[in-house]
Amino acid sequence: MRLLPEGGMSIERVQARIDKERERFVSDLVSVVKIPSISSSSAHKKDVLACADYLAARAKKAGFERAGVFPTAGHPAVVAEWTKKKEAPTVLIYGHYDVQPVDPLNEWTTPPFEPTVRDGRLYGRGAVDDKGQVWAHLLACEAYLAETGSLPVNVKLLVEGEEEIGSEHLEALLTKEARRLEADFVVVSDTAMLDRGRPSICYGLRGLAYFELELKGSSTDLHSGSFGGGVKNPLHALSEIVMRLKDASGKILVPGFLDLVRPLSKDERDRIRALPHDEKTWRRPVGIPATAGDPDFSLLERLWARPTLDLNGIWGGFQGEGAKTVIPARAHAKLSCRLVPDQTPEAIFECLDSYLKKICPKEVELTFKQLHGGLPWVADISHPSFAAAARSMEKAFGAQTCYIREGGSIPFVRTIADATKRPCLLLGFGLPDENAHAPNEWLDLENYQKGIKSCAYLYDELARLPRE
Amino acid sequence: MRLLPEGGMSIERVQARIDKERERFVSDLVSVVKIPSISSSSAHKKDVLACADYLAARAKKAGFERAGVFPTAGHPAVVAEWTKKKEAPTVLIYGHYDVQPVDPLNEWTTPPFEPTVRDGRLYGRGAVDDKGQVWAHLLACEAYLAETGSLPVNVKLLVEGEEEIGSEHLEALLTKEARRLEADFVVVSDTAMLDRGRPSICYGLRGLAYFELELKGSSTDLHSGSFGGGVKNPLHALSEIVMRLKDASGKILVPGFLDLVRPLSKDERDRIRALPHDEKTWRRPVGIPATAGDPDFSLLERLWARPTLDLNGIWGGFQGEGAKTVIPARAHAKLSCRLVPDQTPEAIFECLDSYLKKICPKEVELTFKQLHGGLPWVADISHPSFAAAARSMEKAFGAQTCYIREGGSIPFVRTIADATKRPCLLLGFGLPDENAHAPNEWLDLENYQKGIKSCAYLYDELARLPRE
Repeated sequence: MRLLPEGGMSIERVQARIDKERERFVSDLVSVVKIPSISSSSAHKKDVLACADYLAARAKKAGFERAGVFPTAGHPAVVAEWTKKKEAPTVLIYGHYDVQPVDPLNEWTTPPFEPTVRDGRLYGRGAVDDKGQVWAHLLACEAYLAETGSLPVNVKLLVEGEEEIGSEHLEALLTKEARRLEADFVVVSDTAMLDRGRPSICYGLRGLAYFELELKGSSTDLHSGSFGGGVKNPLHALSEIVMRLKDASGKILVPGFLDLVRPLSKDERDRIRALPHDEKTWRRPVGIPATAGDPDFSLLERLWARPTLDLNGIWGGFQGEGAKTVIPARAHAKLSCRLVPDQTPEAIFECLDSYLKKICPKEVELTFKQLHGGLPWVADISHPSFAAAARSMEKAFGAQTCYIREGGSIPFVRTIADATKRPCLLLGFGLPDENAHAPNEWLDLENYQKGIKSCAYLYDELARLPRE
Repeated sequence: MRLLPEGGMSIERVQARIDKERERFVSDLVSVVKIPSISSSSAHKKDVLACADYLAARAKKAGFERAGVFPTAGHPAVVAEWTKKKEAPTVLIYGHYDVQPVDPLNEWTTPPFEPTVRDGRLYGRGAVDDKGQVWAHLLACEAYLAETGSLPVNVKLLVEGEEEIGSEHLEALLTKEARRLEADFVVVSDTAMLDRGRPSICYGLRGLAYFELELKGSSTDLHSGSFGGGVKNPLHALSEIVMRLKDASGKILVPGFLDLVRPLSKDERDRIRALPHDEKTWRRPVGIPATAGDPDFSLLERLWARPTLDLNGIWGGFQGEGAKTVIPARAHAKLSCRLVPDQTPEAIFECLDSYLKKICPKEVELTFKQLHGGLPWVADISHPSFAAAARSMEKAFGAQTCYIREGGSIPFVRTIADATKRPCLLLGFGLPDENAHAPNEWLDLENYQKGIKSCAYLYDELARLPRE
């Protein structure tokens, strides 16, 4: 065990500086939320690149020693480093600068890439997912460096550009830059708190397997008068198939789908049950009249620790104004599964593919393909870095930190955890109802400020941990 | 009984003239197929008007005494008249100049409004439905007038602009212009022949009831990770509902839906069974691997004399390139029913509306509305005008005329039949696989020419019928 570093005084000065700069932090975030870095759209490729360039330049301005744009076979990642404290531990901080698509555009109150402050919130695509959370770390580092000329830990900031499309090329980058990215702890800020005033550390993420399905009936669209009653309508065939994948109660009917699901321990079920979570508070902001899903599990268990099978999009036939009497040639669906340990995207594809081939009506032709996938992850929370992270959030938020899981997917976490065997600390400053992936995404500016403070406390706390 | 008019010589001269002008007839049709008169699209309102103006001018050029554009509360109708033969019967000829939408545009080999001749076919939206068939009458009248200075019957040509959107304002026009449109016979050319070389008279049409359905889950699109497993997905709710409307075999499950269906007589079932109809010839051109539908009825019975319930379009969630992990707030469907005597659109709306309210999952909010509807129609084919029409087609095509029904809807026919009690003769020159309502609509130019000849023979035949 080495001596604890000085810093008790430094951290208080850093926090005081953060308190003073609150307004600037908002306008600083606006400058990056403005950039339409939609990774799934080839039309926005230039914007994605521009966002990476902007971020690297901004990190240098913040005081990082080195900051560069690292190409991948897809969109590039940004890596910024400050590694002057040779005796201190190294923290690898991960986030992403790419954002989700914005449709349906007409449901946005203000345009997605014209960030706007209303009622203590910043509205804009990427405000919470994940630009605001990346900025929390960037600004905490900047404040530390400006106030003390130093950081208590070495920091490597890795911000990728393909999180929203499955982080396909991240693993190759991690392999190529393994030496550069070596660290003692991994910190990820891309999750939400359990609720307002409930700072949270996330120790589990679901994986993802995303698919596309097409059913082809005829070779051309048909007149519904001339052919109606004589042919299988692909839109009806789609409904038939969907109803054989999952029943109306939400139970998945695909043979083998649940085989690899690791059962929840009694301890964990008890811990989840004890969390202060209110169903109505969860569903009301997004206007859900009632929850739904497999009745054998509680809501939080279903959201965090059970797999899903959801249609993400359907289309086929006439969608325009008025009426068109057509039996379309094709029906389409985007379909995805959230996965839990120990499921894999490959195993799920196999299950679905062979079942779909079996149940597809003979009058239509099936095409089924996997778009991307990511493994689920769950951490051992007994490592002392979890308690250190919990303390840093408690100081910033003035409330006890909750241990939660998360229904979403961050492919990086499982990859880096497997590759480094280091503790991964997921400190999220979002709220569950901030419309990530939906129109009118927003970020609570109070949580943004407390997030910046949490990050500064975290670097200090991690510096004080006994070295292993 | 009066003396039969002269004309035996005239009709042969008219037919010889028609034979000589074959090439010009094609380029003449191109000039009207060029006009994008899509009645369902407000963006094409000007084109619809331009088409009406063009048609009125063209009818005057053809020799009609009067031709005008008659406004309605929607798109106008065109009426052209030649009524100099006071002693002869009057024929009201009906068609429509409006056309279906053209999406999916990328499936057209040549643009829908750049009519193109390939392999003896004219490709273009509206080529067969219904501009080519309107032109058959227009050109037959023109040839008659040019060759003989007269027509054997009085002709009133009524061409409307709202057939593809339900002929909503036609009934008001028929009432307002009842005197002007008085006739002894009604002739409609907007149907298809049973098959190549099988000239056909259609004595039954299905009606239509067209609906739109929306299911609303949440007030905004949801992140499929944060909410997946906890909410009812409206896209799945749509599948649940669809599967309770019609089973996989095609039987309609809506209570009361079939109550008003008039059973087929044994005679008619025998007559339908005796028709030269080949299932493979029917389904192959449109690439249907197998027929489908209620196994208690033959294919032609299902297509002509049984009601349907078909999705015409579905949409909801993400349809773009790549992946978006969203649970959409809304699912949408366009849904329509082909009706048979004695069903009514109102009765079908009532059945569906009350059943949908009953079966809609409680977690989603249902909106269901009727867009438009039209009554079904069936004629008594024992009237001598049917035999006269059959003879005229036999002379032009050199083959026996078939008595058929048609699965599509022409709201005008039932309306005019109810209003006038006159025989309605449906002589169609289309083919079942000419892609009416689909990409790459075409018209067989051989049938177009024989159609023009049939029209000329028809006027002669109707002039010779004993007056009632």
